[in-house]
Amino acid sequence: MSPKENVLSIFGLGGLNEIGKNMYAVEFGNEIIVIDCGIKFPDESLLGVDVIIPDVAYLEANKEKVKALVVTHGHEDHIGGIPYLLRKINVPIYATRFTLGLIELKLREHKLLRETKLMEVDENSKVAFQEISVSFFKEIHSIPDCLGIVLHTAQGNIVHTGDFKFDLTPASTERSDLHRMAEIGKEGVLLLLSESTNAERKGLTPSEHIVAEHVDEAFLKAERKVILSTFASNISRVQQVVDAARKTDRKLALLGRSMVNVVAVARERGYLDIPDDMLIEANEIDELPPEKVAIVCTGSQGEQMAALSRLSTGNFRNVEILAEDTVIFAAGPIPGNERNVTRIVDNLYALGAHVIYGSGSSSGMHVSGHGYQEDLKLMLTLMKPTYFIPIHGEYRMLHHHRLLAEQVGVEKGNTFILKNGEVVDIENKVARQSRKVPAGNTFIDGIGIGDVEDIVLRDRKQLSEDGMLVIVLTMSKIEKQLISPPDTISRGFVYAKNSEELLKEVNNQIAKAFEELKASERKEWSIIKQHIKRTVGKYLLSHTRKRPMIVPIIIEI
Amino acid sequence: MSPKENVLSIFGLGGLNEIGKNMYAVEFGNEIIVIDCGIKFPDESLLGVDVIIPDVAYLEANKEKVKALVVTHGHEDHIGGIPYLLRKINVPIYATRFTLGLIELKLREHKLLRETKLMEVDENSKVAFQEISVSFFKEIHSIPDCLGIVLHTAQGNIVHTGDFKFDLTPASTERSDLHRMAEIGKEGVLLLLSESTNAERKGLTPSEHIVAEHVDEAFLKAERKVILSTFASNISRVQQVVDAARKTDRKLALLGRSMVNVVAVARERGYLDIPDDMLIEANEIDELPPEKVAIVCTGSQGEQMAALSRLSTGNFRNVEILAEDTVIFAAGPIPGNERNVTRIVDNLYALGAHVIYGSGSSSGMHVSGHGYQEDLKLMLTLMKPTYFIPIHGEYRMLHHHRLLAEQVGVEKGNTFILKNGEVVDIENKVARQSRKVPAGNTFIDGIGIGDVEDIVLRDRKQLSEDGMLVIVLTMSKIEKQLISPPDTISRGFVYAKNSEELLKEVNNQIAKAFEELKASERKEWSIIKQHIKRTVGKYLLSHTRKRPMIVPIIIEI
Repeated sequence: MSPKENVLSIFGLGGLNEIGKNMYAVEFGNEIIVIDCGIKFPDESLLGVDVIIPDVAYLEANKEKVKALVVTHGHEDHIGGIPYLLRKINVPIYATRFTLGLIELKLREHKLLRETKLMEVDENSKVAFQEISVSFFKEIHSIPDCLGIVLHTAQGNIVHTGDFKFDLTPASTERSDLHRMAEIGKEGVLLLLSESTNAERKGLTPSEHIVAEHVDEAFLKAERKVILSTFASNISRVQQVVDAARKTDRKLALLGRSMVNVVAVARERGYLDIPDDMLIEANEIDELPPEKVAIVCTGSQGEQMAALSRLSTGNFRNVEILAEDTVIFAAGPIPGNERNVTRIVDNLYALGAHVIYGSGSSSGMHVSGHGYQEDLKLMLTLMKPTYFIPIHGEYRMLHHHRLLAEQVGVEKGNTFILKNGEVVDIENKVARQSRKVPAGNTFIDGIGIGDVEDIVLRDRKQLSEDGMLVIVLTMSKIEKQLISPPDTISRGFVYAKNSEELLKEVNNQIAKAFEELKASERKEWSIIKQHIKRTVGKYLLSHTRKRPMIVPIIIEI
Repeated sequence: MSPKENVLSIFGLGGLNEIGKNMYAVEFGNEIIVIDCGIKFPDESLLGVDVIIPDVAYLEANKEKVKALVVTHGHEDHIGGIPYLLRKINVPIYATRFTLGLIELKLREHKLLRETKLMEVDENSKVAFQEISVSFFKEIHSIPDCLGIVLHTAQGNIVHTGDFKFDLTPASTERSDLHRMAEIGKEGVLLLLSESTNAERKGLTPSEHIVAEHVDEAFLKAERKVILSTFASNISRVQQVVDAARKTDRKLALLGRSMVNVVAVARERGYLDIPDDMLIEANEIDELPPEKVAIVCTGSQGEQMAALSRLSTGNFRNVEILAEDTVIFAAGPIPGNERNVTRIVDNLYALGAHVIYGSGSSSGMHVSGHGYQEDLKLMLTLMKPTYFIPIHGEYRMLHHHRLLAEQVGVEKGNTFILKNGEVVDIENKVARQSRKVPAGNTFIDGIGIGDVEDIVLRDRKQLSEDGMLVIVLTMSKIEKQLISPPDTISRGFVYAKNSEELLKEVNNQIAKAFEELKASERKEWSIIKQHIKRTVGKYLLSHTRKRPMIVPIIIEI
């Protein structure tokens, strides 16, 4: 289904009813402008899946209409899917200087840099396509160089906030451009898409300057090494560490691949100020007195292979955490990561380190990059949209964001809580929810894209809990008789050497199954296999309470 | 290694450096008194494992010394392992009336009730063995009828707190016996074992009466059904719901197997007051106006098969949650359960329900049953122990509890942070850490106890992420030649129907492997298998980035 000529259509391909894989699109006439293209990490039910990207079948089918991918900022849930999209549609990418730096890292890795058109924009840019033109406004979040986006169309203006908070005293020199936002609101906003991550949290996001004070204090107090862990992309947090290190006369080492890469991009492009002579390599740490060293590293989420986890278990080459060192978690755990984080905290205490950690902003070492309720209300108030689509959140966040919108004057009935793929059409300034476009999860499983079938995931689930039992039956082609005793191979079910009795009984069950088959006179291979699976499965369930995957293999001789 | 005659030994077999499977033991002369026997739920790395219990090899080896299992209270992490222990050692169990009720439920299920000696005690009981005698003191927690334990020995008194908090206005009529605790402290405590769950949390645990107020308020405000979810064992929370239902003239339905069972035990034994005519069955709910109905159910942790989860997806027989119903989570999510809980919250909002939830005590509908820092300091102050072992906690909790102990006067060096199995020996009133007894995790995997080998778990891990590929090779016995093309069976790796190309290439790789084998002249089956595994594995890793478990099967003809 295609929209009518002068209908303006808005939909999400990712980010609705979920945190992650943000991707939104605006379609008008013969043009589609795509905003962001992120990834999401699978939950524990998607065994073996590496990452999830949005299903872009609709964009592929309308390839010639897709004029631009406009990117709000450089976080993975907004840029991580770009290489996969580019393999299907070679679309020009518009983003700020820093965001482009991170996208380039990614494209280089995927060998897509040369053939991709990258267009640098800033808050003053205006990009005009045939039907839609795009302008921007400056925002702050937890990564440099973020933009909100305005799409100007004959039907009216659409605003997409990207990720944002308001902070009048942020860590960097960047500021939210309140004046420009006020102007946009005054010009008139037909529809606002605004992020909902913290729509459940009361009040205003705390200011970054609180973190700076706490970091400084911890550095002053520390009598030995200071190790601070944060997201590599949180450049203003890294700058706070640099400043604290300077004040306490410490050299700084960067540990973790993404920390090294992202800091290089930020320094190169002028977003981070580190004197050359302050930086040292990991192997130089031991040459300095511990009170002269600071480390900033990855792993604040407890990721097993990241620097901090390896440091906590003594598995980082050339660097050791010792008693009386200070370790700071300068990022709150993302829901689901708490246990991995506390496991590291335990290890660090056992090493004798001082550990500063805590959920949310309780330690003073972290504030969220996403606006709380008052931030969201301020955005809604500035923009005064006629229609509203809360985006970037799970259902309850979208729900609470709707309530906030109604509190500040968005008319009841003018908010649309959408699922990915559900379209809002606007015609003559009237919006209504209409058609659906294909949308869903595309799994990246190894090199394969989108090719993990449900049945494969179901098999992995069964294999993960109960393992498998391969049963090899050598049979005569004509009489359909067992020629030799069956062979059983167990993997992930029981350890064969300790389960001889059980496996012997499996063979008895197989013999029993054959007796039953003889009586029934049914002799197709598929019937034989089915009956053996059922008989052995039933026996194992009642005797072990496990349901291993049973794979009968028949060899005809 | 056995202890010397008049040495008093204390150790944990579970609960140290972990939350769960609590089990502690005191050994003196020819006697061992065991305190609690809990289970723990496996983390995501222990695929397929149902529960974990303590390794009790030391107790088994010293069977004749084990005089009693004394149980502090009826939570699963204190009683869940009892049936498994009893199969190895038939030991008499001492516990309060309510705790025994819950143990009996468990023993009946495991068909162990008849042969087990259950001894009812209360706060005034004194149980004398030959060397050790045991007395008790009343405490409060989040389940009725909790006891602290005093073990009297010739070397001095040892106190085990069980789980506790202080609350001067709790929900039930039970009270912490501060006077008795003061007396015990005054008599002299040689060593205190005290729980550490909330040793990281500042202040005093909030009082249960806050919850009562919030429950009442929610019931008064609700215009339709109220559904409240909590732990079945939190009987005083259930009583609060009963009271609120009475005040608002509602009937009450109990949903969920454990809710029904535990409430039955509590009513039978006089711990819960519900008028008979207040209770209704699930299928009677629809016969009443919605404002006349309250439901109390299991599933506050987002457990997939529990009542609340099934209600939230419309899969509970005879009961539906409808728009404007009120759903209350009256229990905070245990770390690791957050995502499962918020998934249900999302579903409930999508049904149009009012949902009251929140982490910790933020919603007012839950307070912790474990004392915060000020509670722990009060216990330490009352008991004035010479030596201290923080128990029931992960490392950082034990660490913080030690700091608290030092703040209130326990001498530096007199606190022992132990691992499971590490023993503190006390001789002539001097304590030191000495020998180790066997301790660890025993896995329950289906019916098997302790029989999941590491290799089985490793196999499950590989199978869960990358699946498997069975390769059947039919070969001539003497020439060791392939007679027919190999057969491949994929499960959890790729879906065979969509991967014909790949599986064809696997066959080419096998042919290639045979060519190489021909050249090398090595023809043992094991060499052939090994070489095929390596060749195919390498090919698949580089072409799919997956490492399926490869199982070559050779059929000789």
